[in-house]
Amino acid sequence: MLDSSPNNDFNRDINYVWHPCTQMKDHEAYPPLWIEKANGLYLYDKEGKSYLDVISSWWVNLFGHNHPRLNKALNEQLSKMAHVMFAGITHTPAVDLAESLVGLTPENLTRVFFSDNGSTSIEVALKMSLQYWSQTGQPQKARFAYLKGGYHGETLGALSVCGMDLFRKPFDSVLMNNIEVEGPDCFKCPYGLKPESCSAECFEVMERTLTQNASSLAGVIVEPLVQGAAGMKMYPPVYLEKLLEACEAQQVHSIFDEVAVGFGRTGTLFVCEGCNLKPTFLCLSKGITSGYLPLAATLAEESVYQVFLGDYASFKLFIHSHSYSANPLACAVANESLKMLQEEEFFNKLSPKIDAFKGGETLFTELPWCGEYRQTGMIAACELVQDKATLQPFPLEKRVGFAIYQEGLKRGLFLRPLGNVIYFLPPLIISENEIRRLLEEARDCIRAVLA
Amino acid sequence: MLDSSPNNDFNRDINYVWHPCTQMKDHEAYPPLWIEKANGLYLYDKEGKSYLDVISSWWVNLFGHNHPRLNKALNEQLSKMAHVMFAGITHTPAVDLAESLVGLTPENLTRVFFSDNGSTSIEVALKMSLQYWSQTGQPQKARFAYLKGGYHGETLGALSVCGMDLFRKPFDSVLMNNIEVEGPDCFKCPYGLKPESCSAECFEVMERTLTQNASSLAGVIVEPLVQGAAGMKMYPPVYLEKLLEACEAQQVHSIFDEVAVGFGRTGTLFVCEGCNLKPTFLCLSKGITSGYLPLAATLAEESVYQVFLGDYASFKLFIHSHSYSANPLACAVANESLKMLQEEEFFNKLSPKIDAFKGGETLFTELPWCGEYRQTGMIAACELVQDKATLQPFPLEKRVGFAIYQEGLKRGLFLRPLGNVIYFLPPLIISENEIRRLLEEARDCIRAVLA
Repeated sequence: MLDSSPNNDFNRDINYVWHPCTQMKDHEAYPPLWIEKANGLYLYDKEGKSYLDVISSWWVNLFGHNHPRLNKALNEQLSKMAHVMFAGITHTPAVDLAESLVGLTPENLTRVFFSDNGSTSIEVALKMSLQYWSQTGQPQKARFAYLKGGYHGETLGALSVCGMDLFRKPFDSVLMNNIEVEGPDCFKCPYGLKPESCSAECFEVMERTLTQNASSLAGVIVEPLVQGAAGMKMYPPVYLEKLLEACEAQQVHSIFDEVAVGFGRTGTLFVCEGCNLKPTFLCLSKGITSGYLPLAATLAEESVYQVFLGDYASFKLFIHSHSYSANPLACAVANESLKMLQEEEFFNKLSPKIDAFKGGETLFTELPWCGEYRQTGMIAACELVQDKATLQPFPLEKRVGFAIYQEGLKRGLFLRPLGNVIYFLPPLIISENEIRRLLEEARDCIRAVLA
Repeated sequence: MLDSSPNNDFNRDINYVWHPCTQMKDHEAYPPLWIEKANGLYLYDKEGKSYLDVISSWWVNLFGHNHPRLNKALNEQLSKMAHVMFAGITHTPAVDLAESLVGLTPENLTRVFFSDNGSTSIEVALKMSLQYWSQTGQPQKARFAYLKGGYHGETLGALSVCGMDLFRKPFDSVLMNNIEVEGPDCFKCPYGLKPESCSAECFEVMERTLTQNASSLAGVIVEPLVQGAAGMKMYPPVYLEKLLEACEAQQVHSIFDEVAVGFGRTGTLFVCEGCNLKPTFLCLSKGITSGYLPLAATLAEESVYQVFLGDYASFKLFIHSHSYSANPLACAVANESLKMLQEEEFFNKLSPKIDAFKGGETLFTELPWCGEYRQTGMIAACELVQDKATLQPFPLEKRVGFAIYQEGLKRGLFLRPLGNVIYFLPPLIISENEIRRLLEEARDCIRAVLA
């Protein structure tokens, strides 16, 4: 299908670029979209055709593309300095951001360690936890528990707490010896309960794991409320309340991976803050710069930080670094974005949008292939099934999601389903009307492909 | 020593920020420099005092701070779009950069996979290598060999090929079971040879390792010519020639980590290209954006790429991603920086600078504490010893390097020694005169502290 002339731009892409999480052979038949510019909710290709960025460019964008305030913040910092190293040196954008994050998260979290992406924010938490136990006389506490379906990034440390075969299988033999735990499954609750009214009866599996393995466990890691890569699987806060209680009882660190759900996605600034939960570590990235630049932060409890203080010769320090840690340009954009999230009207304006997403319930459950329509704040998803009665999924090889994605592109939607799950995670500035139109258009795509 | 008023800025730093690779207790007595702006070779603190950025802000900056051409490239891209996801989508800055990198590196390297930092560029190479062997029927090839003193980043996968206890020790129990190999030690050559004239007789250890472990080895990883974190330890290209020959003979992948040495530092654009060597993987970061923004690239051989192509249902694809992969702003700056590196006069102008560094030889070897002055291109280092005859090092607890660092700050130099090694890795735009002044000033710092 590709023009074979060497100057054809798509040939330049396919000849040199290896895209992430992509079967590159697909691109021979279906070249990637070539996006030239972006504005607000929309991406524009070379021919000027627009696509609604339904998934916020991998869940990162909050305020839309090309936002004047964020552009201005970036430019102002650029006129001072793009970057400077962050050991032996500090700078205003990083200190401002650290102070804000500490102020906006639960009071036990007092220290901010910067890195570049979600994976590294997790690696930092895992390493801090391991070193903490080693420096407090319990080096045998060196394993982590994680949930089935959990996803925390793809560097080998982060992969070792991944509960999805798709990501970890080719590398299984070299990963840390951690413990996978059956977590909540509200789509097919084995207890026959409803998330609105249950008491996370399913927590018994984790409870048992923690009790039986407390002496070898450094920590437990979870994606609070929404397991993103697993297909926007959602579960209620009561599970997290039980988890933090059990972690405290068993002396096990709790690591909240809010890389995907942080910065307003669930309807509060952070899940931990909205639900009044105090994890030992909080990992943030993605929305932190509202989709402008790579940046991540790991927040740690004061009691952890204290264990790393000492004389130089004690070598108690936390040795971890990335060259561009706390990049001033990224921090400057993050500060402006955080300011916008804190403005009075922001969360007020979000609530009718969250209501607009509730409208998807009727729209999708009418379809003969909708196993469930679910929603947490500004994240909504429709899980497609072959058979509504048995909830039997479409086989992955059928690539139902891919066909719907293609249909979406024709109609100007950039959807990118997760297998059989069509989900909506748009920039938070989307209007109620745009949400309604998006849901209808997506419904029509599903119908066009499956009818 | 700190002003205890809550509005004192240094208190804000010490209260909220956890700096990388820093014993934070040190900052109570010695607060970090608070850098407000940067221009050319210099960093400026809040009082306007300037510091020469001797180590290019952790080896990243090539063309100085606040460079009009790089600022302009960033701004132009910002006016189109800051970022868009890189799966299912492509864009001009990334495709241009991938094409340039493929054109400027050895011909066997044909594919570019983007990530965010040096660590992730290594993780990508390790994972590609593991999956390659698994998909070609040799899943038992799942270990890596690495050099003593080698440093390749600090995520847990990258740490598992680290040959320095300082970085890996607290995490040793959870790291992959890899093989550490005694590498070249030209400072104290056990064969009594000189790097200018030897034939890398020390390669025999690696040769034996490869021969004996070929069936379980996926790859070997090295920092070509200069082991940075180990203290700018240098060795001749003949070691690398022998390595690539042995890797081919034993069917083991070779991974060149040019994160620190790439983009002109050694006097050629890349070591592999300058020495006409063809590794299986090439990892790049740091200088890629000339010190502006986090970005990394892993280049892979065509034969590797081909093994990942197939139908979707074969699941042969390389599943790895970071949200901000191929960030357009970072790629745009990288493209402009690469253009500047390719301009005719650039490498011509570098050669008198490299000569100016040669002047350090006389300057430092005159000192009674200089065990060796060494240089590779635009990287030079003076290794301090207690006793010149026996080359006995100063004990680390004495913190000789730290005292020289403090002395440097007084004199407007930001040095940041590696233990007993005082090194020079300035932006490549430094002039011959500035090099001479820098070397003299650093010599005086050493004298002031040790005399």
